[in-house]
Amino acid sequence: MDLTEQMMQLARRAKTAARQLSTLTSDEKNLCLEAMAGAIDDNRDAIRKANDLDMAAAAQSGLSGPMLDRLKLDEKRIKAMVRGLREVAALPDPVGRLLEERNRPNGLKLCKISAPIGVVVIIYESRPNVTADAASLCFKSGNATILRGGKEALHSNQAIARLMVDAARRASPKFPAGAVQVVSTPDREAIRELLSLTELVDLCMPRGGEGLIRAVTECSRVPVIKHYKGVCHVYVDSEADLEMAGEIAFNAKVQRPAVCNAMETLLIDRSVAADFLPGLARRLAASHVALRVDAAAKDLLKDPIEGLNVTDATEEDWYREYNDLILNIAIVDGLDQGIAHINEYGSGHSDCIVTRDEARAQRFLNAIDSAAVYWNASTRFTDGGEFGMGAEIGISTDKVGARGPMGLEELTTYKWHCLGTGQIRT
Amino acid sequence: MDLTEQMMQLARRAKTAARQLSTLTSDEKNLCLEAMAGAIDDNRDAIRKANDLDMAAAAQSGLSGPMLDRLKLDEKRIKAMVRGLREVAALPDPVGRLLEERNRPNGLKLCKISAPIGVVVIIYESRPNVTADAASLCFKSGNATILRGGKEALHSNQAIARLMVDAARRASPKFPAGAVQVVSTPDREAIRELLSLTELVDLCMPRGGEGLIRAVTECSRVPVIKHYKGVCHVYVDSEADLEMAGEIAFNAKVQRPAVCNAMETLLIDRSVAADFLPGLARRLAASHVALRVDAAAKDLLKDPIEGLNVTDATEEDWYREYNDLILNIAIVDGLDQGIAHINEYGSGHSDCIVTRDEARAQRFLNAIDSAAVYWNASTRFTDGGEFGMGAEIGISTDKVGARGPMGLEELTTYKWHCLGTGQIRT
Repeated sequence: MDLTEQMMQLARRAKTAARQLSTLTSDEKNLCLEAMAGAIDDNRDAIRKANDLDMAAAAQSGLSGPMLDRLKLDEKRIKAMVRGLREVAALPDPVGRLLEERNRPNGLKLCKISAPIGVVVIIYESRPNVTADAASLCFKSGNATILRGGKEALHSNQAIARLMVDAARRASPKFPAGAVQVVSTPDREAIRELLSLTELVDLCMPRGGEGLIRAVTECSRVPVIKHYKGVCHVYVDSEADLEMAGEIAFNAKVQRPAVCNAMETLLIDRSVAADFLPGLARRLAASHVALRVDAAAKDLLKDPIEGLNVTDATEEDWYREYNDLILNIAIVDGLDQGIAHINEYGSGHSDCIVTRDEARAQRFLNAIDSAAVYWNASTRFTDGGEFGMGAEIGISTDKVGARGPMGLEELTTYKWHCLGTGQIRT
Repeated sequence: MDLTEQMMQLARRAKTAARQLSTLTSDEKNLCLEAMAGAIDDNRDAIRKANDLDMAAAAQSGLSGPMLDRLKLDEKRIKAMVRGLREVAALPDPVGRLLEERNRPNGLKLCKISAPIGVVVIIYESRPNVTADAASLCFKSGNATILRGGKEALHSNQAIARLMVDAARRASPKFPAGAVQVVSTPDREAIRELLSLTELVDLCMPRGGEGLIRAVTECSRVPVIKHYKGVCHVYVDSEADLEMAGEIAFNAKVQRPAVCNAMETLLIDRSVAADFLPGLARRLAASHVALRVDAAAKDLLKDPIEGLNVTDATEEDWYREYNDLILNIAIVDGLDQGIAHINEYGSGHSDCIVTRDEARAQRFLNAIDSAAVYWNASTRFTDGGEFGMGAEIGISTDKVGARGPMGLEELTTYKWHCLGTGQIRT
């Protein structure tokens, strides 16, 4: 069987499974999820054995230390998978929610009801714990999943998926075998084949580095929901509480710099820059944050600050996601210039204004074209858990489909139930 | 300037305009729409003159009669455009609606707010009245529009768009010139260029025949919302009120067969087929509906019926959208087979069950993977007006983004306003 046929068969099985999944009750789904959790928990040794195979091959092929760390399934990560599955079971069913109801003059009742999307392809790097997380969220939302993890994690991913499917089938005869599938070939062409099947695959969600996501988006014929990167901003307004602004900026940069909702660029209104910047720079320097600044900011940082590392920002720097203890700083002339900078250089992820003035905040909230726009809070809150979604499958900066953190509800579409008593059109 | 640069410039202007549009108030937008309506109304002669140029060229190039009819802008169609613009002005603003509110334990208030999508490309055939309809709906929802109509309608489309833009600019200095633009080149490559600009174009909506829509979808790198065709079904259940079933089936096929929400295939449960089919067939024959049937239905139509035109349905027929007085009929063994047929051959548009049994209806509503699923009503109601949306820009059978009839609200996305009092993440 060639690759095209192989992917077609995989997708057809998923489509058939998706039809079946849309008829499962919440109780049936939760029973399956509990059984999956039990099976992972009971087979930790088998999972570790599969993971050992992956780890050995990866070490031999010279995978880097941080990559090996991501690949590793230790006791803690396996337990986190088990806990994750149980948490998903405990979350409310996102399918069948009544989103809107309209009663038409002719007596027709229209109900907008949340429904599964169908077949979802998840593409991710060599983090095998994502297998259980992603598959369980898709399953709870009534979707069939096709999982394509990094090739280094293939044994681990297959072991996890097989345990989940077998356990769910034992728990409910209605669980379709094609509900969770792992792409078994390492061939990269498999992704292109799969994502050309517009009649069978409904959505693709790539997770990982910008390079992976751009490659997937470029080759896909099916809808893709993703974010490329998080170039998040904090804008300190002329009307800001400067103490609050300092706390927010420091938190947004330093608390966990490696994540997508961390700040990459700080914009300061010229009128408050002299009062604000030197103090913050001292704190940032003490936390080993390197600064890339424009001329005006550089001028304000003339006086010596211990440990300060300042260089001139290049035009490219304003577009960059450092994921590191590096921060761009620019001085802007007022709110409009701040907004223009963010809409030009930002990535549509998370951006914040610090101000006491509600009207100015409102202007910022409306004008910034990003998934999450903050007034007086750290950008670090853009996260499914922090948003109260219970779990997160990713963050979207797209504007068609889900936007912002994606939990269970964001893995559904809707359909219209039109309830009549014999209405015909005249 | 080459085509690539030309399209890039068009899209950049649209992006700049979109940023500006997101800051317009409802009053400002409505003022512009009223001014547009007035300008179209006051310049009917100029529009007809532009249309005459298109009509003359089209007649000379041998365009067919029905195509010429679509291209023509007579007094009635121009007045309908004017009325349409005023109706859009009167509709509620779809931007800024509070869709959801969450108060987090840390005091952060999360508001899910509807927002414009951004830059929307509308591709359509040579119906110049679509220019005003589509542009006004996109504008009211805060989006910048790039219009690409059939090349035969270029003079008409440009005249209409120019009148709209000039009038709106006079009405409000905040109306950006790039808010409504017409692609001025007839080069088909322009579409591919435009739809490769993923950083500037947010959405493409093709409207027209299946061929056009498939070609657009195939070449687009930006999200596309569309429906290819409407292969709509009515399933007559064993528990159906057969009189009601007859009325619904007749209406769904005959009332306006050329539209996408008309029925193409009738499925009848075997247990009621003998009672139901011959009577309906007589009525359909009297209305000149040709039938394409399976063996079991053929058998039930052995007895002579005046004017009846019956042929054997081929496998391909079940996938076909006739848009004509032709109807497929199959006899199925129960609800599950009916559901399976619809999910296999249907187009995910509009499908109906006729039954008295609520549990069976519910099974159908949940299992059918279509945008609109009917219980005891004609499929002909899938329409923005009938759904109470006030206006319709299209119908979607997609599952990422809007699904079903698309009015103003369906032309928006959402974003999260996160309102804090200094919250930082710990």
